[in-house]
Amino acid sequence: MRIAERIKRLGTETAFAVSGEAATFAAAGNKVFPYHLGDLNLKTPSTVVDGAFKAIADGKTGYCPNAGIPQLREAIAADVSASHHTAYAMENVVVQPGGKPTIGKFLAAVMNPGDQVLYPNPGYPIYESQIEYLGGEAVPYGYIEVEDNFELDFEAIEGGITERTRVLILNDLQNPNGAELSGDQRARLADIVRRNDLLVLCDEAYFDMRYSGTSTSFVEEPDMAERSVILYTFSKKFAMTGWRLGASIGPKDIVDVIAKINVNDESCTTHFIQYAGLAGLQRDQTEVREILAELERRRDAAAAGLNAIAGIRCIVPRATFYLFPNVTNVMRRKGLTDYEEFRRAALHATGVSFTTRRHFGRTLPNEPNQYIRFAYSGIGVADIEESMALFKGWCEA
Amino acid sequence: MRIAERIKRLGTETAFAVSGEAATFAAAGNKVFPYHLGDLNLKTPSTVVDGAFKAIADGKTGYCPNAGIPQLREAIAADVSASHHTAYAMENVVVQPGGKPTIGKFLAAVMNPGDQVLYPNPGYPIYESQIEYLGGEAVPYGYIEVEDNFELDFEAIEGGITERTRVLILNDLQNPNGAELSGDQRARLADIVRRNDLLVLCDEAYFDMRYSGTSTSFVEEPDMAERSVILYTFSKKFAMTGWRLGASIGPKDIVDVIAKINVNDESCTTHFIQYAGLAGLQRDQTEVREILAELERRRDAAAAGLNAIAGIRCIVPRATFYLFPNVTNVMRRKGLTDYEEFRRAALHATGVSFTTRRHFGRTLPNEPNQYIRFAYSGIGVADIEESMALFKGWCEA
Repeated sequence: MRIAERIKRLGTETAFAVSGEAATFAAAGNKVFPYHLGDLNLKTPSTVVDGAFKAIADGKTGYCPNAGIPQLREAIAADVSASHHTAYAMENVVVQPGGKPTIGKFLAAVMNPGDQVLYPNPGYPIYESQIEYLGGEAVPYGYIEVEDNFELDFEAIEGGITERTRVLILNDLQNPNGAELSGDQRARLADIVRRNDLLVLCDEAYFDMRYSGTSTSFVEEPDMAERSVILYTFSKKFAMTGWRLGASIGPKDIVDVIAKINVNDESCTTHFIQYAGLAGLQRDQTEVREILAELERRRDAAAAGLNAIAGIRCIVPRATFYLFPNVTNVMRRKGLTDYEEFRRAALHATGVSFTTRRHFGRTLPNEPNQYIRFAYSGIGVADIEESMALFKGWCEA
Repeated sequence: MRIAERIKRLGTETAFAVSGEAATFAAAGNKVFPYHLGDLNLKTPSTVVDGAFKAIADGKTGYCPNAGIPQLREAIAADVSASHHTAYAMENVVVQPGGKPTIGKFLAAVMNPGDQVLYPNPGYPIYESQIEYLGGEAVPYGYIEVEDNFELDFEAIEGGITERTRVLILNDLQNPNGAELSGDQRARLADIVRRNDLLVLCDEAYFDMRYSGTSTSFVEEPDMAERSVILYTFSKKFAMTGWRLGASIGPKDIVDVIAKINVNDESCTTHFIQYAGLAGLQRDQTEVREILAELERRRDAAAAGLNAIAGIRCIVPRATFYLFPNVTNVMRRKGLTDYEEFRRAALHATGVSFTTRRHFGRTLPNEPNQYIRFAYSGIGVADIEESMALFKGWCEA
């Protein structure tokens, strides 16, 4: 069958293949400890569920506006304005079926074929895929491991900018490495954006997935709200990954274009689910806090387990639900250089299923260290403790 | 703000502007009779709603496979195989958030920039928009009004084919005109497709919205299942427009590409809504039949009302929930040549709100007749009767 040329440039999330392997291993009667997917095995808060039921009963089952119901757009604008110390109105918000749609729609709205886009690598693999699918040139920048954080490689960012650079993708509170910008770094990055006349995609999927301290958005820097579109999602904080609800937030003229893409791509986001999200934002937050508290317990258990393994160094991020341990020494000790070999050996020896740096963008030349990613959003504390003992035994053997 | 070049080629559904005008007119205290949108004001069957509630309670709130849950893919394959006398399996089905996403994703999967695509005009405006947005050349074909049907303009189709023609879009049981292919016409069209090595998008959104007779799919023609992707939707028959559930059905290699686009665009369709659709397909069909029965009563009332107006000729389709009356003589009598002027005059004089041929693709040169579209899916019989009396009075004045 003749498939269009553009499809050759389309990537995927290779993490799904890991799910398949884990499922096969489990089907053979083995216990699997699932750290490979950033999904949540926690219940959606009852406030959200009740909101959905009520909206269906109220007949919110027909089409709704392409940009979303006004009440939800207003509530999101109010939520983000408060947490970002910025003045967003309903006109700055377009509802989406999840966080992910903002990536492709934002790039389609502002990037021409041939434009260069700076994107984090390791990072969410859909950035690279959508940039290239839409005819752009994906220019990676990495991170540098320091004492208690991964820091943006500013040298790579500044060195990567040419006159064709149009967009910077920033994932502050980062997947997979939990990286967080300091105030100084935000100011430095804003200066680069300003000087080079860039637009920014602020992927803030993990903005509210925070265990200590306070999240600060890049859009708080002077002029940056006018240059940035925020990827906002209900998936994480309300344990709503499978509901598909999020939004794109930014300057009205870009938001209007994204809404026009909505008309063409899927008409609207599920009507009654928008009321469910509204209920989540406006009602009691007890269950939302309990989701975070449970994730914090998991983080502490998983990080302690990993840091107890000889040859592993694991930074403990204050946000996201990922750990990105440095396993360079363990891989060396085991005589393995290939990520996939390491991952499969661990899975088959221990049932511990994780993804590696390879699942987060094409590896760059001469990376000094090797990393794997543990998502603790889909596994409870007891299983974390059991699995870490097994993994320690295998790593140290 | 710098917007990408491709956005200049992106169209929209101008019918939404009519909704806005109708809402403004209603807000001024006037009664509006809403015939402008193809939405349903009927309840989603309780079987579907119960299926959703149960799936949420069962925790179907996390991510699910990009191509859809296997149970729903199998159920859709079984449903379509039975009604289409064709052997589709789960591998031929990829679930979508609605019927519409199949249009853009199919074109993205098989059409290269510069390819020509034959599409129905008047027809669903998103065809024209997505073809041009993705860099193709949209080549229209029209319909010819005969005694009791609108017939495909085969001359336009054959005359429109060049060596660059790659895709034919067919909307059998057509929006806006209710056109239906005969068996001879299907065979003739299949012959054209075969001879010119085309792929076909079969938009079958209204396949089950039928009041008499039996729907027959174009894919029943020899070799056509291998060349066609079916746009399938739950929106109409289950009154689920706002739920966003549908599927693309076709050859496995195209379906696999479309699933890969799903990974990039929105991860998956809402998890628990897929169980709701499954319940709709598998459980008692009494409420589904009642939706059709109610729509048939509306069709009869609206068609009788229109045909009672001097200067209007309205074919009564056996399917869809649209009427496409020929208003050439009424417009002439009123001294109006502009569709928008006619539409607005009717709205302000009577509250009757409809769309016109202009909302269904760019008008072609030298169209001999003028048509308007009445959607009777969102208005009850009593209001239809009241509105038709008013509309008759205005048309004949």
